[in-house]
Amino acid sequence: MSRFWSPFVKDLVPYVPGEQPKLQRLVKLNTNENPYGPSPRALEAMRAELNDSLRLYPDPNGERLKNAVAAYYGVTPNQVFVGNGSDEVLAHAFHGLFQQELPLLFPDITYSFYPVYCNLYGVKFETVALDEGFQIDVADYARPNGGIIFPNPNAPTGRLLPLQAIERLLQSSPDSVLLVDEAYIDFGGQTAIGLVDRYPNLLVTQTLSKSRSLAGLRVGIAVGHPELIEALERIKNSFNSYPLDRLAIAGAAASFEDREHFERTRQAVIGNRQVLVAGLERLGFEVLPSTANFVFARHPGQDAATLAATLREQGIIVRHFRQARIEQFLRITVGTPEQNQALLEALHTL
Amino acid sequence: MSRFWSPFVKDLVPYVPGEQPKLQRLVKLNTNENPYGPSPRALEAMRAELNDSLRLYPDPNGERLKNAVAAYYGVTPNQVFVGNGSDEVLAHAFHGLFQQELPLLFPDITYSFYPVYCNLYGVKFETVALDEGFQIDVADYARPNGGIIFPNPNAPTGRLLPLQAIERLLQSSPDSVLLVDEAYIDFGGQTAIGLVDRYPNLLVTQTLSKSRSLAGLRVGIAVGHPELIEALERIKNSFNSYPLDRLAIAGAAASFEDREHFERTRQAVIGNRQVLVAGLERLGFEVLPSTANFVFARHPGQDAATLAATLREQGIIVRHFRQARIEQFLRITVGTPEQNQALLEALHTL
Repeated sequence: MSRFWSPFVKDLVPYVPGEQPKLQRLVKLNTNENPYGPSPRALEAMRAELNDSLRLYPDPNGERLKNAVAAYYGVTPNQVFVGNGSDEVLAHAFHGLFQQELPLLFPDITYSFYPVYCNLYGVKFETVALDEGFQIDVADYARPNGGIIFPNPNAPTGRLLPLQAIERLLQSSPDSVLLVDEAYIDFGGQTAIGLVDRYPNLLVTQTLSKSRSLAGLRVGIAVGHPELIEALERIKNSFNSYPLDRLAIAGAAASFEDREHFERTRQAVIGNRQVLVAGLERLGFEVLPSTANFVFARHPGQDAATLAATLREQGIIVRHFRQARIEQFLRITVGTPEQNQALLEALHTL
Repeated sequence: MSRFWSPFVKDLVPYVPGEQPKLQRLVKLNTNENPYGPSPRALEAMRAELNDSLRLYPDPNGERLKNAVAAYYGVTPNQVFVGNGSDEVLAHAFHGLFQQELPLLFPDITYSFYPVYCNLYGVKFETVALDEGFQIDVADYARPNGGIIFPNPNAPTGRLLPLQAIERLLQSSPDSVLLVDEAYIDFGGQTAIGLVDRYPNLLVTQTLSKSRSLAGLRVGIAVGHPELIEALERIKNSFNSYPLDRLAIAGAAASFEDREHFERTRQAVIGNRQVLVAGLERLGFEVLPSTANFVFARHPGQDAATLAATLREQGIIVRHFRQARIEQFLRITVGTPEQNQALLEALHTL
């Protein structure tokens, strides 16, 4: 504590991200990175920006990327927002859309940053319990609210909500915004972006850190009605003038343009997931049905924290949450076939 | 206005940055970019990051860059904060250091984002008038305050405050933080970073967008006592988990390591400024003494807004502020000799 701090700083409890170890030899299955690299066209587009033009400010509007996203999803550029990672996009949405009289609703088990943003922006919220199978029951959200947000598939459970259920939600809460956080949608789910033209209260966010293998670049997007996008733009241009940098705009745009690499690598991750799930089940794990690039699994006879610690000693890192209802689960990123095999072998000998 | 917005959004007045025109042939002297490119070593360091490792999250702590800054300035890495442009670093400082009982003090003519951050973070502030020569008089700040901030050299005046005056300020306000915003310090001023070991209330921010020609990359730093740095880290890790991306960390670190390129290009800008000032004075302009990569000038016989508009028609863009006391000034970025000559010739024919 320093006498020079703003008073509230001393009470801050920083978010703890997944460990980013510096050792190279670890099997790193703890932060849901893609085991495959980004599009070669994305790398080439960034290489083309590495010249004297870096002396110039980036396009504050990131138009090249907005155009690429719009073309990819068949929407117009004014339905697209781009930010420094989907965390920044989410922060703007909490600030610009969710400061309402009624509380924001989100699941009791979900992305841990949501309550952080609520506290930061003074957003009232209520959590809604997942059902016994760790699924979202949309009927539980059919009550007065100032907004609804959840990841689809949900994190860290990996469970997908079908598009019809999302549409029922949009209809049961037509006066508040539904934000569907699709960080993991490309690994087996169907995006809700196709609904934005029919529902002015739908905002969909995505990240380039997972299915597009660009976690190191920090880019996220939002797609929705132009009026929802305008709220995010107003926040950005009033408080936070941090545009995407030139390399990020170029690389992210090219990633959306390279459909072949995207399709091939996401199908590879989906295939690896099936093998991983089968292997875990053979070892006696219960694995929640996952459409993400991770699985959420528990063993009826082994303590999850002990398992995670023992794996760590063997150079394999997975994620364990000390949180009610899920303290016996491990969240395991889908790696390469070799990484997944190493994990299964290590678990087999425990 | 949309019924889905948080209520305050409808009243937002976004900050208007300097124009970033898409035409290539313009002589662009409006946003203080460096006319010379970044260090070739910075470009090479980023090129080396353009590979599959972009699938991995960046080091959340940006250690490679902190180490490079610490080595450059002879401080320790825990005296260094790194962020997405100095605007982000400044935002964290307003949030984490300036929410005090007493008002923050800054000049009446200064960087226009300061009052924006005050409004965002609920920081009380009072502006202090520059003297008749548009200089900061440190005696005006020797009164109870919750912090002091100004750019040095100040923007958009370009006038420098000598280090002894800064030291007097640190001594007259030992119980509040002095933030010296050194965006333009490398073009002729002396950094206050050498004082941080003696004054625990001094925080110095810098950007890589000006003297290091990396505006397109978005990197800023702060240097100060570890307790001040910790406030910024707490804010970042609690509310804003947007680390620098992998390319930015690598490129910015290499920029600090390449002293030769830095020295050569900043001396070139300083030389170009002398020629530009002499040319403007020959045309009858009054030019404030500048240690920045821009000059602030007025003509006793010509209206500044008209001048700016006429130059614009000839493809030369400079910055004009519709603001009390300075509405007859133009802020002109120091360009290449050719750009500066084009400006002088255009002004000569007006």
